[in-house]
Amino acid sequence: MDKKTDSQRRSFLQSAGAAATVGAVSLALPRWSWARPPLPPEDTAAIRAEITKRHDESLTRLQTWIRQPSIAAENRGMNEGCELMMSMLRDAGFENVTKVPSDGQPGVYATLDAGAPKTLGIYYMYDVKQADPSEWTSPPFDANIVDKPGLGKILVGRGAVNQKGPEATFLAALHAIRGAGRKPPVNLVFVAEGEEEIGSPHFPQIAHREDIAAALKKTVGVFMPFPSQGLDGSVQINLGAKGVIECELVSSGEKWGRGPRQDLHSSNKARVDSPAWHLVEALATLVSPDGNTPAIEHYMDKVRPLSAEQKQMIATAAQRMNEAVMKKQMGVEHWVHDVSFQQSLELLVSQPTVNIEGLVGGYTGPGGKTILPHRAVAKLDLRLVPDMTAKDSLALLKAHLAKRGFGDIEVNMTGGYDPTSTSADSSLVRAQVAVYKHHSLDPMMMPRLAGSWPGYVFTGDPLRLAAGHFGLGHGNGAHAPDEYYVIESSNPKVQGIDGATRSYVEYLYEVAKTA
Amino acid sequence: MDKKTDSQRRSFLQSAGAAATVGAVSLALPRWSWARPPLPPEDTAAIRAEITKRHDESLTRLQTWIRQPSIAAENRGMNEGCELMMSMLRDAGFENVTKVPSDGQPGVYATLDAGAPKTLGIYYMYDVKQADPSEWTSPPFDANIVDKPGLGKILVGRGAVNQKGPEATFLAALHAIRGAGRKPPVNLVFVAEGEEEIGSPHFPQIAHREDIAAALKKTVGVFMPFPSQGLDGSVQINLGAKGVIECELVSSGEKWGRGPRQDLHSSNKARVDSPAWHLVEALATLVSPDGNTPAIEHYMDKVRPLSAEQKQMIATAAQRMNEAVMKKQMGVEHWVHDVSFQQSLELLVSQPTVNIEGLVGGYTGPGGKTILPHRAVAKLDLRLVPDMTAKDSLALLKAHLAKRGFGDIEVNMTGGYDPTSTSADSSLVRAQVAVYKHHSLDPMMMPRLAGSWPGYVFTGDPLRLAAGHFGLGHGNGAHAPDEYYVIESSNPKVQGIDGATRSYVEYLYEVAKTA
Repeated sequence: MDKKTDSQRRSFLQSAGAAATVGAVSLALPRWSWARPPLPPEDTAAIRAEITKRHDESLTRLQTWIRQPSIAAENRGMNEGCELMMSMLRDAGFENVTKVPSDGQPGVYATLDAGAPKTLGIYYMYDVKQADPSEWTSPPFDANIVDKPGLGKILVGRGAVNQKGPEATFLAALHAIRGAGRKPPVNLVFVAEGEEEIGSPHFPQIAHREDIAAALKKTVGVFMPFPSQGLDGSVQINLGAKGVIECELVSSGEKWGRGPRQDLHSSNKARVDSPAWHLVEALATLVSPDGNTPAIEHYMDKVRPLSAEQKQMIATAAQRMNEAVMKKQMGVEHWVHDVSFQQSLELLVSQPTVNIEGLVGGYTGPGGKTILPHRAVAKLDLRLVPDMTAKDSLALLKAHLAKRGFGDIEVNMTGGYDPTSTSADSSLVRAQVAVYKHHSLDPMMMPRLAGSWPGYVFTGDPLRLAAGHFGLGHGNGAHAPDEYYVIESSNPKVQGIDGATRSYVEYLYEVAKTA
Repeated sequence: MDKKTDSQRRSFLQSAGAAATVGAVSLALPRWSWARPPLPPEDTAAIRAEITKRHDESLTRLQTWIRQPSIAAENRGMNEGCELMMSMLRDAGFENVTKVPSDGQPGVYATLDAGAPKTLGIYYMYDVKQADPSEWTSPPFDANIVDKPGLGKILVGRGAVNQKGPEATFLAALHAIRGAGRKPPVNLVFVAEGEEEIGSPHFPQIAHREDIAAALKKTVGVFMPFPSQGLDGSVQINLGAKGVIECELVSSGEKWGRGPRQDLHSSNKARVDSPAWHLVEALATLVSPDGNTPAIEHYMDKVRPLSAEQKQMIATAAQRMNEAVMKKQMGVEHWVHDVSFQQSLELLVSQPTVNIEGLVGGYTGPGGKTILPHRAVAKLDLRLVPDMTAKDSLALLKAHLAKRGFGDIEVNMTGGYDPTSTSADSSLVRAQVAVYKHHSLDPMMMPRLAGSWPGYVFTGDPLRLAAGHFGLGHGNGAHAPDEYYVIESSNPKVQGIDGATRSYVEYLYEVAKTA
């Protein structure tokens, strides 16, 4: 541990407002006491006691982390955020914690050799989504504890659920194991990036670096901490996720060679072509007239239909979910094409999309302004399913536009990656199911998450590992205002931070014993 | 003159930074010396001398006016702007200067009875367009004088050309006439509004109030001061203007009954309709696939084709204009459909348009944000030609949308009015031609301005008057950054503020003698 990190740790403990005793305990502990072998979960009373004892310490760690914004989209606090996470990793017992340079923000690689037969991979992100404080009822980087009726004490802040909350909770699990005088039942290979929220453009460079790939290759798979519980306590296991392309379509008079190179008085529309209309016409070719079915040529060719097994998973899930509650929470009255709930879930899981995230062109302020804009932009995201790839789909989008006379419209991809899939038979997933069942939770198995995460870096070539999310606990509001994570739950069905910590301890032991 | 106005006038003179002597001269002069009859323009040496003598006073008046922002779109400085103009009118010799309440910003009505046989109407606006100071090289409300190579000393500021510059210049003409001991050769009926830049929604209420309409009805027509000269000194007379509708098309999940009532994570596109796509699809029905020809049903039915005489005007104008220079200034390489220059002018004058001013939906910041927006807005302006009306065209737009399944999309008209036309044979126009010819300028006659102004309030029912713009001088940048007006011209072909002032003096005398 070099001086820089020592200094940062002190800074961390001070800025967290932690009592001096907390810092003293943390610093005075021996790094690991390797005396005892891994214990099965039913014998972990000592670890559970440590979790309870260290509740305040764990909360303070999370608050400290959230109070350090690290937003890749704004290049804000990235170095500080990376260094802070690295010092937290060292505190939690990781060795060889190193920064991994990339063409973008650096990644982090770390290992923890517990001398165990099995090794588990862990994936973290240290960046968070942007936050507009004016939209929050509690400032996004204050990490305040708020009483929320029906939920209990929650922590409100950017990153609370996505992803610092569950990530800090997993670190709490390692602290508890060590505090109980034990060592983890599995070795750990840790890899992290700081660009998840901008589409992980450089994460393959990090995870596929020769030494890191070699270490990951020895794992039973890679998991990311995630508070999986809904408000009714139920949990879901997604056996993969859609891929995604985020891109901007830019129509400009300059590139087009028609229309103006600068904004003109709108009266000129009678004699001058409009890049804004050009964009609208291009967009209209990308989907069916109802806006619901992608119409990019050959875009759907490689869509793998749902298997009978996957359809059965969805049918089961549909029966367990409450459609009315879901619609109300979403502010939605109809699914596309007025399909049934089960069909809506099938679409959600299986259909590629072309979505407009944003439209920006010309005058966007209050009232009007009589201009013919020289430029207009559509921000799109395209969700991909197996066997589509981000690279091919982007090429299809460009070819489609070119073929229809919109080849001048720039397609600027800002991030994205391939879909990811993991088998329900992998030991990574079977261990998850076992822990949930231990808590009398019957996990809803879903073929695929409709959202996206860069799991393909692990499940695709060259690693071909299992990868997924796991954890008890509850949070909500990722990418939205008032993002939160439950610290002390008043709902007996939902775990707070200590219950979530236990779930990670149990998971490590379960992975250790799952064949 | 009540105390309030006295106090405001002092405030005006002080804030203008006017020398005490200027204030003293202005206040010490007798209101009018009615001693002499109107003089023909060739005998106005004394008035010309007054113009030269009062150059600084005139400039200061204009700077004072621009330094008082009055932006209806932002409801900023409107009362101050109205009162300031009223005090300037009183200073220039108007009597009965009264505020005219409307359902929006108040108008102003004033008269000047010179005991002359003829009466001329004058139309002013006291509002200006919005201005974003970050886009200006000289702050928009500083009214700085800047040296511009090839032009001379220009005043840079919001309203410099649209319309405070020429309006202040016309007031300078009245001051000069009075300063020379004369009275105007025509009586004046003055009417103004403060909502021109938001589409004059309440100007009919003002101009058609019984007493004001009765006064206007006695005029030979209504003119608005305007610096008509191009950089080559040439002038143009537009025998009318297109009408306009400015409106917002708002697509929302709430009104639609499909799609979400709040922004959702974009992964939901697979199962939820998108108001943004709904808007794009609706927009695409409004124009031909190239974005150039309106496709709103029955929108073009009442378009009056150009007459042979109007086509001849355009052919003549096309020969006198420099297409290459115009294209370069506009940053345009091709006219729509690659038509010839003459055809482009015919389209400009004769074709109704549907233009996108702005697109705003969902996430509009840097990079992307994976949301499915619950709302998207297109800001449109539609230009209208005779015999279209704003009311009918708006109804056609709504009917078109409803018929095609977009009846839920709100059409919020923010302003607009009918086209306006004035005969070249009106004495108002003939007097303009006479003054220009006196300056050896052969005015280009154009059937219609492609832009819009609320002249229909005068040319339509119930007044049926001639109406148009007139003036020498030059300015540019209406609605754009670095709007300017030439104060001292270094270009012998272009008049500065004093030359423009003379043109107004000459116009009044010419109107007085034109049959």
